[in-house]
Amino acid sequence: MQYEVDDEELIRRWHQVRQRTEKADANGILLGGGADLKYLTGYDAMPLERITALVGRFSSGDALPTLIVPELEEARVRRRPSVYSVHTWDDTADSASVIAAALPQRGAVLVSDDLWALHLLGLQRSSPGLELRSLSDSVGGLRLIKSPEERAALAAAGSLADQVASQLQHGQIPLLGRTEAEIAEDIAERLIAVGHETVEFVIIASGPNAASPHHHPGSRTVRTGEIVLCDFGGRLNGYCSDTTRCVHTGPAPADVREAYEVLAAAQEAAVQAAQPGRLLADVDLAARRVISAAGYGDNFIHRTGHGIGAEVHEHPYVTQLNTDPVQVGHAFSVEPGIYIPGRWGMRLEDIVVIENGGARRCNNSARELVEV
Amino acid sequence: MQYEVDDEELIRRWHQVRQRTEKADANGILLGGGADLKYLTGYDAMPLERITALVGRFSSGDALPTLIVPELEEARVRRRPSVYSVHTWDDTADSASVIAAALPQRGAVLVSDDLWALHLLGLQRSSPGLELRSLSDSVGGLRLIKSPEERAALAAAGSLADQVASQLQHGQIPLLGRTEAEIAEDIAERLIAVGHETVEFVIIASGPNAASPHHHPGSRTVRTGEIVLCDFGGRLNGYCSDTTRCVHTGPAPADVREAYEVLAAAQEAAVQAAQPGRLLADVDLAARRVISAAGYGDNFIHRTGHGIGAEVHEHPYVTQLNTDPVQVGHAFSVEPGIYIPGRWGMRLEDIVVIENGGARRCNNSARELVEV
Repeated sequence: MQYEVDDEELIRRWHQVRQRTEKADANGILLGGGADLKYLTGYDAMPLERITALVGRFSSGDALPTLIVPELEEARVRRRPSVYSVHTWDDTADSASVIAAALPQRGAVLVSDDLWALHLLGLQRSSPGLELRSLSDSVGGLRLIKSPEERAALAAAGSLADQVASQLQHGQIPLLGRTEAEIAEDIAERLIAVGHETVEFVIIASGPNAASPHHHPGSRTVRTGEIVLCDFGGRLNGYCSDTTRCVHTGPAPADVREAYEVLAAAQEAAVQAAQPGRLLADVDLAARRVISAAGYGDNFIHRTGHGIGAEVHEHPYVTQLNTDPVQVGHAFSVEPGIYIPGRWGMRLEDIVVIENGGARRCNNSARELVEV
Repeated sequence: MQYEVDDEELIRRWHQVRQRTEKADANGILLGGGADLKYLTGYDAMPLERITALVGRFSSGDALPTLIVPELEEARVRRRPSVYSVHTWDDTADSASVIAAALPQRGAVLVSDDLWALHLLGLQRSSPGLELRSLSDSVGGLRLIKSPEERAALAAAGSLADQVASQLQHGQIPLLGRTEAEIAEDIAERLIAVGHETVEFVIIASGPNAASPHHHPGSRTVRTGEIVLCDFGGRLNGYCSDTTRCVHTGPAPADVREAYEVLAAAQEAAVQAAQPGRLLADVDLAARRVISAAGYGDNFIHRTGHGIGAEVHEHPYVTQLNTDPVQVGHAFSVEPGIYIPGRWGMRLEDIVVIENGGARRCNNSARELVEV
């Protein structure tokens, strides 16, 4: 089941892409599969070495993009003649030539971030007159601004993740004596049980392992008297959830409790800073300032957040270097962390969507360091 | 659990890569995550927008490659000082500059197929003196030649897939009255139950849907008197299985039976042609000739096979255009198909590994069109 997008909405999206592309002084666009292609066509291409691409040529007045598909996948493609035309290529064709033929002959073409180097290099060789530029460097991500329907889909996915977070905080997910890997499997099953269609990731990091932000859940057994950091998400109607909650097995010592209060204050400050018209860098710095003031500046070793939507990580990225403004329709995580190597780590993460009045959280389970 | 590769084997692989790179008149290599990076380091990098890269610089006599890792993932990386050095970058750094600093200043650098365009374009901008070339176009895939241990791993994965194929052929997997999606879920569970660690894909295509080679299993209910094409695979110890078997619900009509005999003969001819020293194109053409002679040439709309190993699809590709020789250590699928739009489709697929004496099949379930 997918979030249902009708032809009219796809045409509206394409029109916006065309405007943004032309504004960036480019006259073509090339998307090599992935979430951007699906956003503009509704088609979920297989991520294989045989390229599926969406190609737009604006110089000649062409209105519709061309969906270029391997012949053997043609039958999977829904016909939407008002949205795109379909062109197939077979296993004896050179796909770079097929794509080049659908692109403008000269000028600048914007290419999606995740196009394979193999295809990009092939195209640079076959079309030396083209200037191939990064789409996201030129116009930001295509899917930056979420429609009200998309924001609702993110909120719905978020509330499912909250159900699992709440089970964790109410002691309904056994921790003591289980390995991180066992807990991760349990949480994955719960993500599905509450209604997600897929599990996207589960990070369970206990004790000193929590100091590794992207820890891979392993064979370490959870004991009494430590932090268990749980960061997980799934997908509902094509949109992702992603939340992080930490619990403490047994009473938390004073230093951990105090550090957690700093963390929660930092997260709240960043959410408050996420106002339309302020900068994404301000959001990052709002959290960073609180953590630095408490002496943990060197222990917050990552950006404050990442965009989220059809992918768990997408534009916009909430870093101290991103001077783009916060915009209505943005959706991103706010997830500061504090990591003490060899001892413990903690992170608190909510997804927010930006409305006229400011950030609205998609995650609302308890934000305290719950003792279980 | 992963196929265990020790430092000695990793060093041997790196030495081979270096030799092949220098033979292609290149003095550097850049792998942007993925299976190639894991093949040379044992490290399974997260496929995210923060790049993890393996960089080799051969011009200056550097012996060891550099593993470039996002700071927040540093704790996940195993230290192997005799295999690679580790360099981290944080969220305020420009990753293109970090990578450029580890590459040669001039000359040709080979880049992996699946490096993101975002990173390639960034590098081209920051290092205009470098000639970035496609690794696979220059030297073929890195993982082309499987060691005896890797071939054994593929055979082990294949025999697990065979158990599920055999259940299908013995009527142990209910088909009639179930949807393709339900059957696909059942087969996915069975792939795990027989011992795979993950399910990589399941295609179930019934009746006219079988004419779409990469059909997405859907809501169509299987009826009596039709082909059910089942193409599935999982992963064991990091190596993939992939097999296709067709069954017929009830007695197959004469035309289907005759076409299937053509298909089976074509598949056997291709397996026989897969001899060291012959060409990969010969393998494709051996199957294609049998199918064309029977009048189905236009209905075999894809290449005969793809390499397989740590990925389901990898080099070498078995196409009529690939004039590289078949080599001992190659592993690929042999999977001709016949597709009649609107009516039916059929495909027969085994993985083979190439030994001195010729192709050895990793799949050995019955190759007939079993009636169930």
